[in-house]
Amino acid sequence: MTQSNTSEWKKKLHEIIYEADTPAGKSFDIGLLLVIILSIVLVMLESIPGMSDRYYFEFYTAEWIITAIFTIEYILRIVVIKRPSTYIFSFYGIVDLLSTLPTYLAILGGGHNLLFAVRALRLLRIFRILKITRYIGESNRLLLALRNSRAKILVFLYAVVILCVIMGTVMYLIEGPENGYTSIPTGIYWCIVTLTTVGFGDIHPVTPLGQFIASVIMITGYGIIAVPTGIVTSEFSKATGRVHVNTQVCPHCNESQHLDKAEYCHNCGNLLNEY
Amino acid sequence: MTQSNTSEWKKKLHEIIYEADTPAGKSFDIGLLLVIILSIVLVMLESIPGMSDRYYFEFYTAEWIITAIFTIEYILRIVVIKRPSTYIFSFYGIVDLLSTLPTYLAILGGGHNLLFAVRALRLLRIFRILKITRYIGESNRLLLALRNSRAKILVFLYAVVILCVIMGTVMYLIEGPENGYTSIPTGIYWCIVTLTTVGFGDIHPVTPLGQFIASVIMITGYGIIAVPTGIVTSEFSKATGRVHVNTQVCPHCNESQHLDKAEYCHNCGNLLNEY
Amino acid sequence: MTQSNTSEWKKKLHEIIYEADTPAGKSFDIGLLLVIILSIVLVMLESIPGMSDRYYFEFYTAEWIITAIFTIEYILRIVVIKRPSTYIFSFYGIVDLLSTLPTYLAILGGGHNLLFAVRALRLLRIFRILKITRYIGESNRLLLALRNSRAKILVFLYAVVILCVIMGTVMYLIEGPENGYTSIPTGIYWCIVTLTTVGFGDIHPVTPLGQFIASVIMITGYGIIAVPTGIVTSEFSKATGRVHVNTQVCPHCNESQHLDKAEYCHNCGNLLNEY
Amino acid sequence: MTQSNTSEWKKKLHEIIYEADTPAGKSFDIGLLLVIILSIVLVMLESIPGMSDRYYFEFYTAEWIITAIFTIEYILRIVVIKRPSTYIFSFYGIVDLLSTLPTYLAILGGGHNLLFAVRALRLLRIFRILKITRYIGESNRLLLALRNSRAKILVFLYAVVILCVIMGTVMYLIEGPENGYTSIPTGIYWCIVTLTTVGFGDIHPVTPLGQFIASVIMITGYGIIAVPTGIVTSEFSKATGRVHVNTQVCPHCNESQHLDKAEYCHNCGNLLNEY
Repeated sequence: MTQSNTSEWKKKLHEIIYEADTPAGKSFDIGLLLVIILSIVLVMLESIPGMSDRYYFEFYTAEWIITAIFTIEYILRIVVIKRPSTYIFSFYGIVDLLSTLPTYLAILGGGHNLLFAVRALRLLRIFRILKITRYIGESNRLLLALRNSRAKILVFLYAVVILCVIMGTVMYLIEGPENGYTSIPTGIYWCIVTLTTVGFGDIHPVTPLGQFIASVIMITGYGIIAVPTGIVTSEFSKATGRVHVNTQVCPHCNESQHLDKAEYCHNCGNLLNEY
Repeated sequence: MTQSNTSEWKKKLHEIIYEADTPAGKSFDIGLLLVIILSIVLVMLESIPGMSDRYYFEFYTAEWIITAIFTIEYILRIVVIKRPSTYIFSFYGIVDLLSTLPTYLAILGGGHNLLFAVRALRLLRIFRILKITRYIGESNRLLLALRNSRAKILVFLYAVVILCVIMGTVMYLIEGPENGYTSIPTGIYWCIVTLTTVGFGDIHPVTPLGQFIASVIMITGYGIIAVPTGIVTSEFSKATGRVHVNTQVCPHCNESQHLDKAEYCHNCGNLLNEY
Repeated sequence: MTQSNTSEWKKKLHEIIYEADTPAGKSFDIGLLLVIILSIVLVMLESIPGMSDRYYFEFYTAEWIITAIFTIEYILRIVVIKRPSTYIFSFYGIVDLLSTLPTYLAILGGGHNLLFAVRALRLLRIFRILKITRYIGESNRLLLALRNSRAKILVFLYAVVILCVIMGTVMYLIEGPENGYTSIPTGIYWCIVTLTTVGFGDIHPVTPLGQFIASVIMITGYGIIAVPTGIVTSEFSKATGRVHVNTQVCPHCNESQHLDKAEYCHNCGNLLNEY
Repeated sequence: MTQSNTSEWKKKLHEIIYEADTPAGKSFDIGLLLVIILSIVLVMLESIPGMSDRYYFEFYTAEWIITAIFTIEYILRIVVIKRPSTYIFSFYGIVDLLSTLPTYLAILGGGHNLLFAVRALRLLRIFRILKITRYIGESNRLLLALRNSRAKILVFLYAVVILCVIMGTVMYLIEGPENGYTSIPTGIYWCIVTLTTVGFGDIHPVTPLGQFIASVIMITGYGIIAVPTGIVTSEFSKATGRVHVNTQVCPHCNESQHLDKAEYCHNCGNLLNEY
């Protein structure tokens, strides 16, 4: 009887935590979303110079309250599910663990001193933003279209990198360290900045020949931006579903979806057009 | 009799103010358009340093004349229409009110002193530019295509923001305040500047590792710009609504190109599928 | 006899100057192209500081030789053609005149002093580059696709301008003259620089609120770049030749959607145009 | 017997060097790829100031080992193939030679002095990156789509260059040398930087009129980026060739092009899979 009680209690919690159909489930999701956003805003504010020192106690308290909430959420998620390993080793399980751990590790690592490792650990909390992806439904179709065109886009980006390695070296040769192109990697960095049309302006060609080659790189970058666009667009259009079948329905087997020129049903072999 | 006279006078004015088919209606529209543009140019000129003091009286006079015209227009629009509430609470009704009010409020708020609130109020007049949207006919189809792809574009922009939050934090960690990345929000701002290929150059990576990660961000931004383009393009293509013809050839007249559902030749009227 | 001789001589010259089928016509075109390019290179070199003074005589001589060639070409084109007015008032006729006149006008205008008007006149020679358009054959299809989508692109660019006017004013209000946003036109200029993802960096937001709004503008610019692309792409695809159905309705079976050249209904086989 | 032995040994080596189906062939390819990448990283590191002097001996040794490997590879490729000329004068043959020669030439050219020619020769090694293209399989389809739209893209880029020449001259005229537009070529360089939305910010308009024209150029650049995208996208869509039929052929009527799920031939009505 107790066990049945427990399992019922578990079932109800599972519904609240993992699903969003009941009012309680929805409230839980919205509440958690607010805590995540609050937690990220806190990390951001803490990084602003002066903030961390002035509101030390407030940040400290808020961080521990949020960490407590996340810890409880994490434990509940494990307790409530039937086979905890399916959650623990899933994408969201790992993200949930990684967004709770840093606070504990920061304590162990020595609290508030400015060692790089600790600083990095504490900023790991920013990855809590990934928890939000749980609430995005429409993203799957986007990812599918991207995944289908992944191979072609990688080949394209690879060609861009090769081009940048060569042109960056050429620019290093022409402009030289005296104009800011201090090494080949710097030249490649500049070439990527230019080809992608970002153009920071921290380094820029000074010699006429350098400016001419920079012009060629820029026009190239402006022209080839069409390539990934073309790839993804044709992938999107394909995803929309362009198989050219007509709306004929076989009078014998009710099969719909026939090729334009079909005369016989491809399903039962009878004439499509006999009435 | 008088009432009929009034209603006729109202009907005529309604035709002039709300429609653009009669010569008088066209003149009214063009006149109003010129006043709007003049009013915006005035606000712009007034903001140029020195201008406001030198031509104080001219700006003051012109502003009141324009406000008077807009006030008259607003009152006429309410008087002339049968059910004023349909206009007052419509998009254009609110825009018309908001573009007339600031001048009056600026007077009440203390005239020409430089308090932020008053300055903001006076610049609100710039929103008069929205009144011009009334004259754009073709914009509806554009908005429709945008509205249809809105959900997907928002998901995309959301992914961009998540990416920027994470990469901005990483850059803050790598470059640190000594290279201009004074806080995480600054890092995120820089990351948005870079990923969108704007590249102001006010902040830019200095360390080799920072430049490498910046390169990755830039190439990512250059590659994923294809995604919104793909979405909108496939939406546009869908809107155009295309018809497919198959490759059937009529056995009687050798006519090719038949509609998918064609049974009879559209050229000679014989059955397409009889052999 | 003499007249017939003249007309034959004219006909031959017409063939050489206006056509490119004969070897002589081809040589003429290539020669002229080289002179045009040489002329533009000269104008460019002349503008480099120090060049104009050092090689004054060389520039002077070359300019007069080129002007002489263009003058002869212009006169020949008029003499050779049957109805000179068709050439003189055509696009190329006006371009040819405008690219020859400046040298003569520069003499009349006072030679080599640095008055703005004369400087402008002499640089007008750069427009000789438009003469090259004569040699581009493929450009017509591109222009056609652009012309078809012109209305939509203008509406889009108009929306961009309205957005920039509003956001530029908002930024002027937030950042103010102390951060480089000296006036509303400057703010609008900055907003265009940002929305189009150019990003010079001569002006950039400094306050946190300004950087936040700048981020929104940048992401907007990054997202809406898809709109003109979508328009032109769908226009291009249309141009490639997709089949159009008209809105005729069969008088016998009320079937709509017929091919443009259809004479018989593809559904019932009856004549489409019999009433 | 010996000859047959030799030819067998050659055949095996050919399989290893030119093919990638056997485990040995795969190992060879991966090993070579690593050497290429190592070689490029070395050239990059060597260019960083101070590196070349500090690790002179290490760079020197590594460079000679890599050159030895490439030399052996080059000789083997010639020895192993039946008709060496087909390799030597192929794209990869020339790339392989050019990536080995610089080291030898640098020795002949005087070792480590900083003459421009030698520096250029040594950096030519960066072109070894082109050897990697051998490992990219998917790139052919991309190149095909680009090649098909090459003519149109060139016309577009040509129009961009003409526009930049004219607008660059206009900006030189308006802004003048005192605002950084020192010559017409500089103005054209600036115009390309702006139209392609790169925007370094090394030169930027200062006068109101210059900023206005810059705004027009930027909006133009933002609008016409759609053109190459439209061209390539419609080319890609064409290449995809969109009816999704499989390559089954009906055993009865030899009709190809069947839907994926088809069981009966749509042409003759017989079963597709009966043999």
